[in-house]
Amino acid sequence: MILRSPIKHCRNCGAEVAYRLPDDGDTRQRAVCPACDTIHYENPLNVVGTVPYWGDKVLLCKRNIEPRWGKWTLPAGFMELGETTAQGAARETDEEAGAKIEMEGLITVISVPRVGQVHLFYRARLLSDLFDPGHETIEARLFAEDEIPWEEIAFRTVKETLEHYFEDRRKGSFPVHNFDIH
Amino acid sequence: MILRSPIKHCRNCGAEVAYRLPDDGDTRQRAVCPACDTIHYENPLNVVGTVPYWGDKVLLCKRNIEPRWGKWTLPAGFMELGETTAQGAARETDEEAGAKIEMEGLITVISVPRVGQVHLFYRARLLSDLFDPGHETIEARLFAEDEIPWEEIAFRTVKETLEHYFEDRRKGSFPVHNFDIH
Repeated sequence: MILRSPIKHCRNCGAEVAYRLPDDGDTRQRAVCPACDTIHYENPLNVVGTVPYWGDKVLLCKRNIEPRWGKWTLPAGFMELGETTAQGAARETDEEAGAKIEMEGLITVISVPRVGQVHLFYRARLLSDLFDPGHETIEARLFAEDEIPWEEIAFRTVKETLEHYFEDRRKGSFPVHNFDIH
Repeated sequence: MILRSPIKHCRNCGAEVAYRLPDDGDTRQRAVCPACDTIHYENPLNVVGTVPYWGDKVLLCKRNIEPRWGKWTLPAGFMELGETTAQGAARETDEEAGAKIEMEGLITVISVPRVGQVHLFYRARLLSDLFDPGHETIEARLFAEDEIPWEEIAFRTVKETLEHYFEDRRKGSFPVHNFDIH
């Protein structure tokens, strides 16, 4: 997760900014440039990922990066400009696991206000059980529900998405789950 | 909608940045500071809003701001740090319409990659038909489905969310609709 430090300088002219209420009726303090009047907005980020499944197993990745080095996660990362949530989720699945997938429906939309993020996970049908993990992943491996290292899952959004995935599969219905983690 | 101009100066030290591939294996050009090595990421923004309903009518707001001045929209705006998607949607409903609501379920999650945005709309039950619009709104008014000024709706995400809302209400079921507008 990226924790953001305060803005010190204007992205437009480089002058030092001050945090204050802008003059446009805004009710939040923003980094405002005293030289060129640019107002700098900082907003939540979307993290997009997948639950790649192969029969009754799901694909998890062992993290080769901080935070949570060595813990298990679903393939996911920050959504980029120019892509849709599903395209971002597919891109991360390729980058982190080298997995070939067919994208399916949205499973979870989870706000995590403490870190200014929204996490969105999709079901994704694996087209092969051969993986080619990228440099952010130590190992990519399939787990049945009772094999999942629940105590070694990197993030709560991943754990709760996996729980919804397995529960929905038992029920045979796949609604979108929208909730918050505080 | 905010269209973002390129980053010219480093937010950390004020030096001029250059767009290039960072040295960390990233595959996208970023604004990188040659003086202090800060990498500047730019990511999609979430727009959060509601479909406030009162019996068989919905609340629309006539925009008092550009873009689309004078067109009709649902209360919605950029999600802020420190809030959940639902909290942001409720805040915008208060700010733009001065409407008292009880939040219900998510209706739409719409990627709009052309402008780097994801729009999320919630159903919201109005607790009163008295409104107190803010400075961004000329007028807030209730419309039955056959009264809606479909040709005067400000944004496609708003139009398609309204269409899903009325269709789902007829069906008596409220799934989340996840799609893209290109």
